[in-house]
Parts: sequence; structure tokens; C-alpha cells
Amino acid sequence: MPIDPNAEIEITAFEWVPRFAQGYVRDLRPRWACEEMGLPYRERLISAMSKPEWYFRDQPWAQVPHLRDGEISVFESGATLVHLGDKGDLTPVGGQARASVLSWTFAAFNSVEPLVFEWANVAVFSRREEWATLRRPSLRKQLGERLDRLQDALGTREWLAGAFSIADIAMITVLRSADDTGLLEERPALAAYVARGMERSGFKAAMEAQLAVFLAHTPPAKQEA
Amino acid sequence: MPIDPNAEIEITAFEWVPRFAQGYVRDLRPRWACEEMGLPYRERLISAMSKPEWYFRDQPWAQVPHLRDGEISVFESGATLVHLGDKGDLTPVGGQARASVLSWTFAAFNSVEPLVFEWANVAVFSRREEWATLRRPSLRKQLGERLDRLQDALGTREWLAGAFSIADIAMITVLRSADDTGLLEERPALAAYVARGMERSGFKAAMEAQLAVFLAHTPPAKQEA
Repeated sequence: MPIDPNAEIEITAFEWVPRFAQGYVRDLRPRWACEEMGLPYRERLISAMSKPEWYFRDQPWAQVPHLRDGEISVFESGATLVHLGDKGDLTPVGGQARASVLSWTFAAFNSVEPLVFEWANVAVFSRREEWATLRRPSLRKQLGERLDRLQDALGTREWLAGAFSIADIAMITVLRSADDTGLLEERPALAAYVARGMERSGFKAAMEAQLAVFLAHTPPAKQEA
Repeated sequence: MPIDPNAEIEITAFEWVPRFAQGYVRDLRPRWACEEMGLPYRERLISAMSKPEWYFRDQPWAQVPHLRDGEISVFESGATLVHLGDKGDLTPVGGQARASVLSWTFAAFNSVEPLVFEWANVAVFSRREEWATLRRPSLRKQLGERLDRLQDALGTREWLAGAFSIADIAMITVLRSADDTGLLEERPALAAYVARGMERSGFKAAMEAQLAVFLAHTPPAKQEA
């Protein structure tokens, strides 16, 4: 486990989130990248419930993660992945290999995740709103069509862009967040791709590290709940 | 104007789109980057109405743009910007300068554009659906709050991350697509930032190049319409 209070790399994460979000918060991404490359990191924890005003200077919307690498400050989980990938072997240095990794990384963040964000709103945060109930069928269809083409593009490959890369960390964490749609189980090759990622020791260590923080900071009212 | 049929760089764009989309199609982004850096490029045009099946091999969802640079194939407009920025001076090579450009580029694509996509669906593509009418007020509020924080983060700076960069091409093209919300005019510093970008000769040349294609390929039924 590369968590080390004296590490050069610092990942900002939430100290606690409600049960449904545990294991899905986006600091999982840079944690996973660090685990894959054996890069030690330290944690900086903030409250998700009352985000400190000073944190908006590090992250314009007080989202997590934020990454510090020595004196360098990075925000947006996509940018943390590109920054970290270039420190090790998770992003190829040039040519088609690099171009494919960048293409699939942006595909995860801009062509798949926006629909998954909308799904999370429709299915969780705004589920009691009338519009959310009405929107659900067309959104599920739209996301399903996008996943059909993604599955076609993946084909029989193990990973999206050659060797395992930041593109897989991006896409697998996006797809996991859509697991309540039922769309993945209808697409076995995609489901197997996500499962392959989650079987990696780097994923398991990152997940364990995120959950350990929540366990240590469970509010008294939520304990034994 | 860097359009040159013999150029190493090829940008795939739509040959024609309906009037409301003209000037907003995403090949504007790599065109703008090429114009800023004086990189010549050639065009490859496809039909937006009947997307050729072979194109899905270049772009998983048959979106534009696709970029070719010699033998290298790149898709997703964000990836084309990172690829092109590294060929010239639109992305710094390292340190905090590079980290800030990457952070703001991903912020445009993953923290602002998803809400703008949803707005385009609510306000244009699905505007006759009941859910879209019901969703509109909460979405406008949500996007407005995000833009408030963006305006705070921009502060009195001319560009998002030091010198003009791919992050500004990304964010300004995202914000322009929300101009029908009225949210920009309510935030004068953001509106001025977008206007500054659109005053650049690189933006104007890219826009002119995109519109010239549509003019040359207007379907007979739409002429003089």
C-alpha cells in the first residue's frame, strides 16, 4: 500500500460520504493510478458535507480529487490521471500508443460519463422529481446505444488501448458507476472488461484505501446503522 | 488560412449541418488550435445525416472531429487539443504551467460541458418532451452555479491558465454553446472572457473555415431557405 504521510504526492479525498457513494468517489482514480505504478501518496481529507471555503481555491467546485505533486497542483480526476500516467508507465510517451490512450481517456470523460452523471441524477439525487421519472427510459436507451458501440470498439481486446493504461482506469470507473442501470449485464464483453479491471491488485488496494477512510470517519449517528 | 490538401494533419468534419448547429460543431476546436499555431491541415468531410459505417472504426460514435497526423489517428476533441497543443506552444511542456492547462481542459470537458450537453437536449433536441420542460429550471440553476464558481476562479485573469492555451479553446467553445441560456450575459466577466477568445484571429479563421464547408455543401432543398 503506497499510503505514506511523507510522500511527495498528496490526494485530497472526502473523509466520509453516505453508503451509496462509498467506493465510487473519484479519488479512487488517482489512488488506482498510484497503486498501479507503486507511487507513494499521502491523503488530505476534507468534509463532503461542509466543504471548506479555502478548498475552492484548489478545486473550483470543491470536488474531489485534488492532487499535489511536490509544488504542483492538479485538479479534475482526468488531469490527475494524465499527470500521474506520465510519471510512470501508465501512459505511453508518444506515437499512436499515446494518441490512443488520450483518445480513450477523453472518450470516458466526455462521451460516456456525461450520460452516467445524468443517470445518477435521474436515478438517485432527483429520483423523486417527476421529470426524472419521465426522462429515465430515453436516457437508458441513449446510454445503452453508446455502450453498444463501446463494446464493438473494444472487440476482443483485453484493454482499450494496448497495455493497461489511464484510459482503462477512466473508462472502468465510469462504467462501474452505471452498474445500477442493468446495461452492463446485458453486454457481457463490457461487463467482463469492467470485472478484469476490478480484479487488478491496484484497483483492490485503491478501493480498500478509500473505504478505510470512511470507516475511520463514520459519524456517530451512522455507526451500526 | 492553414487549409492545405497536402498537409500532414487531417481533420474530419461534417459536410453540412442544420443552421442552428453551424459554427458550433466540434471540429472548430482542432481547427482553432491549428490556426493559432499556423499548422496546415486538410479536411475530410463526411455526411452528418448518414454517417458512413467505416467511420465508426475511426470514431466509436461517428462523432466529429477525428484527427489524423501522418500515421497517427486521434479522436475526441479533447484528445485532438492535447495532441495538437504538444506540437506547438498551446500547451506548456511541464511543471505547474502544464498541470494548470490540463486541469482546466478536463474541467471544460467533464465539469462544464456535461451540463451544457444536457441543456442542448432540454432546449433543442428534446424540447417537445414533457420531462424537458420540467427539467429546464433546475438545470439552468445548476449550470448557473457552476458558472458562478468558474467566474470566481477566472478572477481578473485574461486566460484560464497563464498564456492562451488549449484550455481556453476548450472552455470558450463549451461556454459559447450555452449562449442561449442567458447565463453568460448575467456574468459579465465570463461573457468578456468568451468575447476575448472570439476576437482572436485564430478563432475567426476556424469559424470561417467551418462555415465555408457548409456553404459549399448546402443541400438544394435548403438553399435560399
